Amino acid sequence: MGLLEETVEQIAPQDPAWRARARERLEQLTMPHWALGRLMDLAEDLAGMTRSMRPPVERRIVVTMAGDHGVVAEGVSQYPQEVTVQMVHNFARGGAGVNALARVGGARLMVVDMGVAGDLGGLVREGRVVSRRVGAGAGNIARGPAMGRGEAVRCIEAGIEVARELGPATDVFGTGDMGIGNTTPSAAIAAVLTGRPAAEVTGRGTGIDDARLRRKAEVVQRAVDLNRPDAGDGVEVLARVGGFEIGGIAGLILGAASLRRPVLVDGFISTAGALIAHALAPHAADYMIAAHRSAEQGHGPMLDRLGKRPLLDLGLRLGEGTGAALAMPLVEAAARLLTEVRTFEEAAVSGAVR
Amino acid sequence: MGLLEETVEQIAPQDPAWRARARERLEQLTMPHWALGRLMDLAEDLAGMTRSMRPPVERRIVVTMAGDHGVVAEGVSQYPQEVTVQMVHNFARGGAGVNALARVGGARLMVVDMGVAGDLGGLVREGRVVSRRVGAGAGNIARGPAMGRGEAVRCIEAGIEVARELGPATDVFGTGDMGIGNTTPSAAIAAVLTGRPAAEVTGRGTGIDDARLRRKAEVVQRAVDLNRPDAGDGVEVLARVGGFEIGGIAGLILGAASLRRPVLVDGFISTAGALIAHALAPHAADYMIAAHRSAEQGHGPMLDRLGKRPLLDLGLRLGEGTGAALAMPLVEAAARLLTEVRTFEEAAVSGAVR
Repeated sequence: MGLLEETVEQIAPQDPAWRARARERLEQLTMPHWALGRLMDLAEDLAGMTRSMRPPVERRIVVTMAGDHGVVAEGVSQYPQEVTVQMVHNFARGGAGVNALARVGGARLMVVDMGVAGDLGGLVREGRVVSRRVGAGAGNIARGPAMGRGEAVRCIEAGIEVARELGPATDVFGTGDMGIGNTTPSAAIAAVLTGRPAAEVTGRGTGIDDARLRRKAEVVQRAVDLNRPDAGDGVEVLARVGGFEIGGIAGLILGAASLRRPVLVDGFISTAGALIAHALAPHAADYMIAAHRSAEQGHGPMLDRLGKRPLLDLGLRLGEGTGAALAMPLVEAAARLLTEVRTFEEAAVSGAVR
Repeated sequence: MGLLEETVEQIAPQDPAWRARARERLEQLTMPHWALGRLMDLAEDLAGMTRSMRPPVERRIVVTMAGDHGVVAEGVSQYPQEVTVQMVHNFARGGAGVNALARVGGARLMVVDMGVAGDLGGLVREGRVVSRRVGAGAGNIARGPAMGRGEAVRCIEAGIEVARELGPATDVFGTGDMGIGNTTPSAAIAAVLTGRPAAEVTGRGTGIDDARLRRKAEVVQRAVDLNRPDAGDGVEVLARVGGFEIGGIAGLILGAASLRRPVLVDGFISTAGALIAHALAPHAADYMIAAHRSAEQGHGPMLDRLGKRPLLDLGLRLGEGTGAALAMPLVEAAARLLTEVRTFEEAAVSGAVR
């Protein structure tokens, strides 16, 4: 049995007994019933994930997976492909959005080359980028598959391995992506796995105009119609219309779920990875926390498919893991409700008069 | 001229030149245009408030103002009045929701007795609570005014003084409240200053049932009809239908605005204080950041009146300053966008192809 199958088998749902224990305590905290709303829902989730009344949340990491996409040849992005490699350099030097927000979130940042089109050897040798390269950019999905089935398995397993290696020193994972053109395969994955037409799940990405948006939706629809992936086979969906970094994200999520650790899923591209993970192991969704609602059209139906309501809604549409980083303090806050807030009895505060 | 008038005179709008400088840099950061959405709007605001491209945000405090309310005699809350003092003890011992969330937000917590009905002398002597007492609980607004005009000025000025004393060591202020029954005067303030009927701005507070909610809305309407405050006179609105801690919050906001410091306004009760501050000094709104959208009915129209869209929407309805504490990392994140993210030119990343 391969690593992927083994990992999928290890993924169990949240533990209802730990959820119940957490709920019982949360209901007795010195505040009106459930007065911290969704933060208390999250605290209950954390207990159910980690099987603990003291869910550890101190050691956090955002893993940003990078890859390139042949579909940029179709004119779906307004940025040239070289920007993927340039941005990886920017991450490595600490100057990108995700660097700043990871600091706010108290998270380390790991950048993984899953398959960019350029050379990152220097950064890999310096230890600033981890290489898990599966190829030099995914194929143009408007004209053929993104990758072979074996490559799809390899990139998911690479993500699992990253999670496993980080596991002993990581309490909370966050996902992130970098890849010029990657909203196009993400929209294709969304179309296949939510059953929506391409036009409903294709958005402006980095900010394309109306004409280019129409063209992009056509490209997405063509990719789906040409490649016809089986929605019941997550590996096939990734292979036909995905991308290397999206597979890496799916694997990272599966790995985190198998370790029973919470994983903050960033925006549109990360949610495409989450959909692949969910197609492979539906219970993996029990360990996903939707960090934010992306401004990208199509994110809503994807979140619905996963049964997730995001924590933040700030009009972000950057990716990189910025939303996951920004939501880290909310996860910390939820955990602290369980460990640091006293009950009515502990604090000698009078309860409600019924 | 008194401290209040002097402070109001010192409050100037955000500086458009600093906003423009910030916007210019934000538009050149290594990301698609304005891809961090409302975080970038907030960064622009911070520059406009602080007149700086490096808005300081390190030294943060949540100031939780406590006071009691005679209107609890009308059966508007399901908790007994003694809970106000008990919760102040809980704050002082670090066991309440706001203590846990202030730690997450990297904020100190200051608890101020503006006028609780019980004795907090022990905590004041120990330095755990600051006494700015104006009285032993506000009057029952369903049967008369909350306080005299002189008392209203005194509690606003107490809040201003707190802000001024904290000023030299504080970059970001947050507001908070504690006071059993205080959603009732807050709803009355909302009714007067938004012009809505009481039923539209009265909510369930700590979680009352339908019958008690109807009764509470009647109490709010009676308080407004009986006291008939002039909506153009913020001091009068506070004196007739407010409360001591609400006045303290209004003063804290005015003080922060006069110091040109951002102030995170917590939920429903704090926003009532913000409406009083806004009635006294409309430009004070330029320094307010709405931390979150409360689950309490009526918060929406109050935020609309201030022209504010809240950062978080997590179904919180606790008060104490919990929402303000939870939003502190978002303010830090916005500031870091200005100081830590490189521009396309600085990072040698290719821009969009037009």
